[in-house]
Amino acid sequence: MAPANPMFSTPEMAAIFSPGAHVGRMLEFEAALAQAEAAAGVIPAEAAQAIAAACRVERFDVPALYRAAVPAGTLAIPLVRALTEQVAPEGRDYVHWGATSQDVIDTAMVLQMRDGLSLLIARLLDVGDTCAALAEQHRQTLMPGRTLMQQALPITFGLKAARWLGMTTRQVARLDALRREVLVVQFGGAAGTLASLGADGTRVVKLLAERLGLGVPDLPWHAERDRVAEIASALGVVAGAMAKIATDLVLLAQTEVGEVSEGAAPGKGGSSAMPQKRNPVDATFALAAARLAMGAVPVVLSGMAQEQERAVGGWQAEWEALPELFLSTASAVERVRQALSGLEVDAERMRGNLDMGGGLLLAESLTMALARRVGRPEAYRLVQAAVARVREEGTTLREAAMADEQIRAVVTEDEIDQALDPAGYLGSTDAFIDRALARYREVRATVQ
Amino acid sequence: MAPANPMFSTPEMAAIFSPGAHVGRMLEFEAALAQAEAAAGVIPAEAAQAIAAACRVERFDVPALYRAAVPAGTLAIPLVRALTEQVAPEGRDYVHWGATSQDVIDTAMVLQMRDGLSLLIARLLDVGDTCAALAEQHRQTLMPGRTLMQQALPITFGLKAARWLGMTTRQVARLDALRREVLVVQFGGAAGTLASLGADGTRVVKLLAERLGLGVPDLPWHAERDRVAEIASALGVVAGAMAKIATDLVLLAQTEVGEVSEGAAPGKGGSSAMPQKRNPVDATFALAAARLAMGAVPVVLSGMAQEQERAVGGWQAEWEALPELFLSTASAVERVRQALSGLEVDAERMRGNLDMGGGLLLAESLTMALARRVGRPEAYRLVQAAVARVREEGTTLREAAMADEQIRAVVTEDEIDQALDPAGYLGSTDAFIDRALARYREVRATVQ
Amino acid sequence: MAPANPMFSTPEMAAIFSPGAHVGRMLEFEAALAQAEAAAGVIPAEAAQAIAAACRVERFDVPALYRAAVPAGTLAIPLVRALTEQVAPEGRDYVHWGATSQDVIDTAMVLQMRDGLSLLIARLLDVGDTCAALAEQHRQTLMPGRTLMQQALPITFGLKAARWLGMTTRQVARLDALRREVLVVQFGGAAGTLASLGADGTRVVKLLAERLGLGVPDLPWHAERDRVAEIASALGVVAGAMAKIATDLVLLAQTEVGEVSEGAAPGKGGSSAMPQKRNPVDATFALAAARLAMGAVPVVLSGMAQEQERAVGGWQAEWEALPELFLSTASAVERVRQALSGLEVDAERMRGNLDMGGGLLLAESLTMALARRVGRPEAYRLVQAAVARVREEGTTLREAAMADEQIRAVVTEDEIDQALDPAGYLGSTDAFIDRALARYREVRATVQ
Amino acid sequence: MAPANPMFSTPEMAAIFSPGAHVGRMLEFEAALAQAEAAAGVIPAEAAQAIAAACRVERFDVPALYRAAVPAGTLAIPLVRALTEQVAPEGRDYVHWGATSQDVIDTAMVLQMRDGLSLLIARLLDVGDTCAALAEQHRQTLMPGRTLMQQALPITFGLKAARWLGMTTRQVARLDALRREVLVVQFGGAAGTLASLGADGTRVVKLLAERLGLGVPDLPWHAERDRVAEIASALGVVAGAMAKIATDLVLLAQTEVGEVSEGAAPGKGGSSAMPQKRNPVDATFALAAARLAMGAVPVVLSGMAQEQERAVGGWQAEWEALPELFLSTASAVERVRQALSGLEVDAERMRGNLDMGGGLLLAESLTMALARRVGRPEAYRLVQAAVARVREEGTTLREAAMADEQIRAVVTEDEIDQALDPAGYLGSTDAFIDRALARYREVRATVQ
Repeated sequence: MAPANPMFSTPEMAAIFSPGAHVGRMLEFEAALAQAEAAAGVIPAEAAQAIAAACRVERFDVPALYRAAVPAGTLAIPLVRALTEQVAPEGRDYVHWGATSQDVIDTAMVLQMRDGLSLLIARLLDVGDTCAALAEQHRQTLMPGRTLMQQALPITFGLKAARWLGMTTRQVARLDALRREVLVVQFGGAAGTLASLGADGTRVVKLLAERLGLGVPDLPWHAERDRVAEIASALGVVAGAMAKIATDLVLLAQTEVGEVSEGAAPGKGGSSAMPQKRNPVDATFALAAARLAMGAVPVVLSGMAQEQERAVGGWQAEWEALPELFLSTASAVERVRQALSGLEVDAERMRGNLDMGGGLLLAESLTMALARRVGRPEAYRLVQAAVARVREEGTTLREAAMADEQIRAVVTEDEIDQALDPAGYLGSTDAFIDRALARYREVRATVQ
Repeated sequence: MAPANPMFSTPEMAAIFSPGAHVGRMLEFEAALAQAEAAAGVIPAEAAQAIAAACRVERFDVPALYRAAVPAGTLAIPLVRALTEQVAPEGRDYVHWGATSQDVIDTAMVLQMRDGLSLLIARLLDVGDTCAALAEQHRQTLMPGRTLMQQALPITFGLKAARWLGMTTRQVARLDALRREVLVVQFGGAAGTLASLGADGTRVVKLLAERLGLGVPDLPWHAERDRVAEIASALGVVAGAMAKIATDLVLLAQTEVGEVSEGAAPGKGGSSAMPQKRNPVDATFALAAARLAMGAVPVVLSGMAQEQERAVGGWQAEWEALPELFLSTASAVERVRQALSGLEVDAERMRGNLDMGGGLLLAESLTMALARRVGRPEAYRLVQAAVARVREEGTTLREAAMADEQIRAVVTEDEIDQALDPAGYLGSTDAFIDRALARYREVRATVQ
Repeated sequence: MAPANPMFSTPEMAAIFSPGAHVGRMLEFEAALAQAEAAAGVIPAEAAQAIAAACRVERFDVPALYRAAVPAGTLAIPLVRALTEQVAPEGRDYVHWGATSQDVIDTAMVLQMRDGLSLLIARLLDVGDTCAALAEQHRQTLMPGRTLMQQALPITFGLKAARWLGMTTRQVARLDALRREVLVVQFGGAAGTLASLGADGTRVVKLLAERLGLGVPDLPWHAERDRVAEIASALGVVAGAMAKIATDLVLLAQTEVGEVSEGAAPGKGGSSAMPQKRNPVDATFALAAARLAMGAVPVVLSGMAQEQERAVGGWQAEWEALPELFLSTASAVERVRQALSGLEVDAERMRGNLDMGGGLLLAESLTMALARRVGRPEAYRLVQAAVARVREEGTTLREAAMADEQIRAVVTEDEIDQALDPAGYLGSTDAFIDRALARYREVRATVQ
Repeated sequence: MAPANPMFSTPEMAAIFSPGAHVGRMLEFEAALAQAEAAAGVIPAEAAQAIAAACRVERFDVPALYRAAVPAGTLAIPLVRALTEQVAPEGRDYVHWGATSQDVIDTAMVLQMRDGLSLLIARLLDVGDTCAALAEQHRQTLMPGRTLMQQALPITFGLKAARWLGMTTRQVARLDALRREVLVVQFGGAAGTLASLGADGTRVVKLLAERLGLGVPDLPWHAERDRVAEIASALGVVAGAMAKIATDLVLLAQTEVGEVSEGAAPGKGGSSAMPQKRNPVDATFALAAARLAMGAVPVVLSGMAQEQERAVGGWQAEWEALPELFLSTASAVERVRQALSGLEVDAERMRGNLDMGGGLLLAESLTMALARRVGRPEAYRLVQAAVARVREEGTTLREAAMADEQIRAVVTEDEIDQALDPAGYLGSTDAFIDRALARYREVRATVQ
C-alpha cells in the first residue's frame, strides 16, 4: 500500500502503484499462470478459463486483503484463498498451481515497474523536449558560469540547458535499457526448483513470460535481488539528475541573482505572510522528492543480503520501498518538468550579472591573451595583480588593465577589449550544444 | 499524507500521523496562537474566540487541502485561506496573526511527534515487560551462546532476554528524555524575528507553548533542524534495537536450531505452497519495518544542510520521512512485542543443542580448569589438541579429555566433569540478569 | 586502520584514531585488565606487573598486526599472541585472562571515542566562541532574511550567528551528555557471561572500569550496539549542524550576494585557471566532510541487527566506519571554525542587498501596518497589488504605496516610512540573541 | 588519500587507489593534455615534450601535495605549481594549458576507476569459476531449501551455487558494460566551455581521450555526475551480491546446520578464548566490507545535486567515497572468493538435515501427489493434518501419511514413498543449473 501524498507523487504513478493496482497485477499473474499451465497441458483448459474469469480486481476487498496479510506474512496467502472462493468449481483445484507467494508478488511488482519505467521515460522525454528548446533558444544568451558558487567565466544559458539535456538523455537511455533487459518473470515455486511441475517447469515459465510480456530469466531469483537493486539504483540516479537541475534553478532564482523564475500561476508559490514572495515551489519540491527517492535506494541495496531461498525482512521491505521510490522519482521528474516548462528567463539580468564586480570573470580570458606573449605563469601573475586593484579600488578589470604598464606593454587596447568581450570567449559552447541536441534526437527516436 | 500500509504501520500510530490528524494539529496551533495573542493583548479576545471556534478539523476537506498544497508549496497556505472563510467576521482579520507557514507546520509535527514518542514508549514497555518475564522465567534455561554464528559457550535464555531488556530499557529512557527536552514550539514569523509582533514576540511564544504543552526554545529553529534529526536518529536506534531482537528470534527459530517459535494463530505465518511451514512472520516484519525506519533517518539527517532562513527541499522532505519513520518504527516495536509475547521456548531443544558436536562449547571451561595448573597458553594447546580429536574421531570432549594423558596428569575425572557441566560455567549470568531487571524497574517507574 | 587524508580529517583526530593509537588502547586494556584481576585476587600481582610492563605500543609491529588480523578475523588474536611473547615468564600465563577479542577491541574503541568526543567538544566551543562574538558584534547589522532562497524580511547578521550558536550549543551539550553517560567498558568474556572468572566477574568489571576511567554497564553489550549507534548518530547530527552553517556561508559568499567571504591566506582558495577566484574553500570542505560523516551513520545504524552473541559483519564494519565518522566530523567542525574565524563580513553589501528590488522585503511590515486598520486579509490584498506595480513598473515599494489611494486612505506618509524602515521591523531579534548568548555561556561553563 | 586497512581492502585495489597512484594519474593527464594540444597545434611540440618528461610521480612529494591541497581546495593547484617548477623552460608556460582543476582530478579518477573495474571483473570471474565448479560438482547434492529460514523443499547445493553464479555473471556483464560505455574523459576548462582553446576545443578533447584510451563525452560533465553515480551504484550492487553469497555461507556454517565450513588455514578464524572455534572469517569480512561499500553509495548519489558549473561539497566528497567504495567492494569480492575456493561441503550433513523433523519438507510434494486426485485445496488440508500429527507425536511424515485413512484412500504406499523421495522432487533444478553455466561461459568469453 503506497503513500499517495500528492506532494510527493503524481496521479499517474500513484495509479500504477496503488494497492488496487498491485492486487490487480497479482490476479493478472494468477490468470496468466493458469493459462500457461493449460497451454502446457499441466492443468485442464476449463480450469484455466474458470480461474482467468475470476481474476478481476473489482471482486476483491483490497483493504481486507492487506489487513489479512499482516499475520499471514504475504498478500498472496489471503488473495489465493479469496480467489479460490471466487473461482468456479472446475478451476478451484488449480488456483496458484505450482507457484509460491513470492512468484506472484514479485511478478506483480515487475509488471508495475514496467509501467513505472515507461511512465518515467515519457515524462523524462517531456523534460528533454523542454531542455532542447531552451538550449536552442538560449544558445547565445550570455550568463555567468559559476564554480563553487563564484562567478567564473561566461557561458550561455543554452549551454546549461544542453548539459541538463545531456544528463536527461542518458537517463532515458538507461531506463530504456533496463526496461528491455531487466524485467523478467518470477516463477520458481516454493524453493525455486519448480518441483511441483515436474519436467514441465521451464516450459511453463516461458509460456507465462510470453503471456505477461516479460523476459525469461535463466533461473528463479527469489533471493538474488540484483535486478531489483539495479532498477532502484537507476531511479536514484534519475532523482539525482533531477535534483541537479532543480538545484541550478533555485540558485538562479535567488532574489540577488534573478536570472530565472518559475512561471506564476494562481495558488502557486506565495507565502502566508509575505505578499511579495514568488517561491520556486516546483524546484523546491523536486529537491524534496529527490531526497526521498535517493533515501529509498539504500533500503533496497542493503536488502540484497538475503537469507537462503527467501529472505526475512530484506524482501518484504521492498514492498514499501519500491513503490515509494517510483512515486517520489516521478514527482521529482514532474516537478522539474513543470518548473522548466513555464520558466521565465531574464536574459537582461543574466547580462547584468556578467558585468557585476568589474568584469572579473573575464580574468582568465585576459590571462590567455597575455599568455600567448609572456607565458601562462607570468600572465597569471599580471592579471592577478590587476584583479587585486579592481577589488581594492572598485574599478573594472578593463580600467585596471588599461592602467597597467606591464600589461599594456604586451597587448593593445583592442586586444584587451576583445579579451574582455564575453561573447568572444565561449570556446566550444556551440559545438557542445549541437552535440547534446543530436544525441537527444537519436535517443528519442530509438526509445519510441 | 502518510503511508498507511498495515504491514508497515500500526493502527494507533497511523491515527497519530494521518493527514486528518496533521491538519487537526495545525488547527490546534492556530487556535492556541489566537488565544495566546489575545491573552497577550495583541489581538481582541472575541477574535481569538471566533478563530478557536472554527478550528475543527471536521469542517475541512483534508484531501482538497493536500491537493492545493501541491502548487502552493505548503499546506498552511490553503488551510489559512479555508480557515479564514470559516471564521466569524470578528476573527477573520486575525487568523494566523504574525505566523508563517513553517510555524504551524512544524508545531503540528512536534505535537504529532509528542504523541508518537509516548506511544512508542508505551509499546516498548510492553516489550520490556515481556523480556523481563522471560529473563526471570528462563534465568536457568541453558542454551548455547553463539559468536559469529558458531556455538561458543553456554549461556541461559534468561541472560539473552536480559540483554534485550537492557537495550529496551535504554530506548525507553532515551525517548523519555527526548520527550522532555526536545519538544519545543516553533514560532518565529516570516523570517524568525517575530517582526510583526513588535515587542510582544517572546511573551506570545511563551503563552503559546504553555497552551500547547510544549517547551519554549531560545530561538525559532526554522532552519536549524538538529532537534528533529536527534528524534529521527533516536527512532533509528529504536528500530535497530528491535532488529537485533528480531534477528535473534529468526535465527533461534530456524528448523535446525528450533529453540523458539512464534506462537501459532489462525491465518498466521503459513505458506501458500507448503503445509508444514510455521514462519516467524512477526520477527520477519519487524526486520522489514526496521529497515524502512533506518532508511528514513539519512533523509532527515542529510536534510540538515538547510538554506538560510528556510530550506528548499530539506525541510519539505521531512513531511514524508518523519511520519514514515514513526510508522515503521512503531511497526517494528509492535511486531517484536507480538513475537515475544507468544514466544514458545523449547528448553529441551536448547539443552540438546548444547550437547551437539561432542560438547565442544565447553572447551574454554576445560582450558580454564587446566590453566590454573599449567598456565593459559599450555592449557589452550592441550585443549585444542583434544578438540581436534573430537572432530576427527567423532567422539566427545569428555572422552577425548579422559583419554589424554597430558590432561589427565593435571586434572582429575571429577574436575573434568565439573569443567564440562554447562550449568557450572555461567559466571556472572545471574548477577547480570538481576541488574537488567533492576534497571528496567527503575526506568519504568520514572517514565510513568 | 583509519583514512588519514588531510582533506577529510584533522591531525589531532587522526592521531586519536590512528592504527598505532588503537593498538595502544588495546594494550592499555590488557594492562588494566591484568591489574584489575590482580587487585581482585584472580591472578598473581607479579603476573599483572609483568603484563603491564610489556604493554607498550612501541614494542609492536602495528602494520604486521593488521595484516595478521586479515585471516585471524580480529586484531586481538595476533596482538595477544605477540603480547604474550613480550611478557616476562611470570605473567605469560595470565595475559588476556578471561577476556574475549571483542572485549579488548570494543573497550579500546570506547577509549578512542572518549578522546574523540572531548576533542569535538573543544573544537565546537571554538566555533561557539566565534559565533558568540559575531552575534554580539553584528547584533544590529541589517541583512535580508531569505526563505526558499528569496528575500523575505530583514534580519541581522547577529541573529543568524545566534542561531548558529544555539545549534552549536546544543551539540556541545549533547556530546557532553554522551561522554558522561554512554562510555562504558566492554568486558564479558567469550559469550558475555564472564564464565571463566567464576564468581569474580562483576568485581573485576568494576575495577577494570575504574582503572580506565569508564562507566560500568549493567551487562556486557557485545551484540547490543545501541550505545555505539547513539554516538554515531550524534556525530551525524553534529556534521549536519556544521553543514547548515557552511551552507549559509557558501550562499552568502556568492558573487551576486557578496555578504561574507572567507579570509584570504597564502595558498588558499584560488583557482588553477581563474586569477579572480576566492573560493569559499573551508565551507566547501566542511560540506564535503559532513557528507562523508553523515554517510557513515547508516553503516553503524543498520549494523545493529547483530546475530546472537557476536555479529558477522555488523560489528566488524564499525572498525572502519567509526574512525571515519570521527575523522570527517572533526574535519567538518574544523573547517567551519576556520571559515568563521577569518570571516569577512560586508555590512554595506548586506544593507545594499536589502534595498534591492524596491524594498519588497518589507511588504509584510507594510501589511501589518495596514492590518491594524483594515484587517489582515484586506491589508494583504492591498500590499500585493502594490507589489505587483513595483514589479511591473520597476518602482519601489515606498513609491507604489505613496501612489496608492486606498493605502494612503489608511496610513500616513510617516507611517509608511516607519513601516518600510528595516531597522524598525526586527521584532524579537535582540531578545533572541541575548538568549542564545546566555545559554551558550551556561553550557560552556558546565562543560569545562 | 584512501584508507588502506588490509581488513577492508585488497593490496591490488589499494595500489590502484593509493595517493601516489592518484597523483600519477593526474600527471598522466597533464602529459597527455600537452601532447594532444601539441598535436592540435595549440602549443609547441617542444613544450609538450618538456611537460611530458617532467610528469613522473617519483619526482613529487605526494604527502606534501595533499597537505597543500587542504587550504588550496584541490590537489590540482599545488600539483600544477610543483609540476611547472619541474618542467624545462620551454614547456613551463604551457603546463595545464586550457584546463581546470576538475579536468585533471576527474580524469585521473576515471583512469583509476577503469583499472578498478577491470580488477573487479577479473576477481568476479574467479568467483564465477568457483561457483561454476561447485554447481557442476554438487548438481545432485541434496540439501534443504530454506525460506524465511525454515526448511521448505529439497534443493541441491549445485542449484544454490548456480544461483550465485547467475548473479555473479550479471555483475560481470554489468561492470563490463560500464567499462565500455561510461568511462569518458573530463575536459572543459574553467566553466565547461573550453573557452581558452578557442575553436580547437573539441579537437583537443578527442586527441586527449585517444591518448588516454577513454571515451569522448558529448559535453564536459563537471557538475553532471550521473556517470559516476551509475558506477558507484553498480559497485553497491556487486557488494550486495557478495553479501548474499556470504549470508548463505555464514548460515550454512552454523554449528547446528554444519553444511559448509571455510577451509582451515594457519592463523585463520580461531578465537582468543575458545579453542574449538572455526569461525567463518572470510564470509564475515565479506559482509563487513559489503556494508561499507553499500554505505558509500548514498554519499555519491546524494552528491549529484551539484551547484551550477562546479559543486561545493558534493564533488569533493567523491574523492574519499569513490576510493573507499572500490576498496571495500574489492575486499568483499576477494573474501567471497577465498571463502568459496576453500569451501568444505558436508554432503552427509546436508542429507541428514533433510531428514530432520520427520521429513516435513516434502509436505508440498505429498500435497501435489494427492492434488492430482482430490484437488489442491483438499490435498493441502489432508497434508496439513498429517503435519500436525508429525509435530504432536514426533513421528515422521511417512508414518503419519501411511496411518491416515483419507490419504491412503487416494494414494498407494509406493506413491507415498515416491512423493517423499527428495531426489525425485527437484523439478527443473538440472535445467536451471545448465542455463546458469551456459550463460556464464557466454559472458566469460565476451569479457576477455
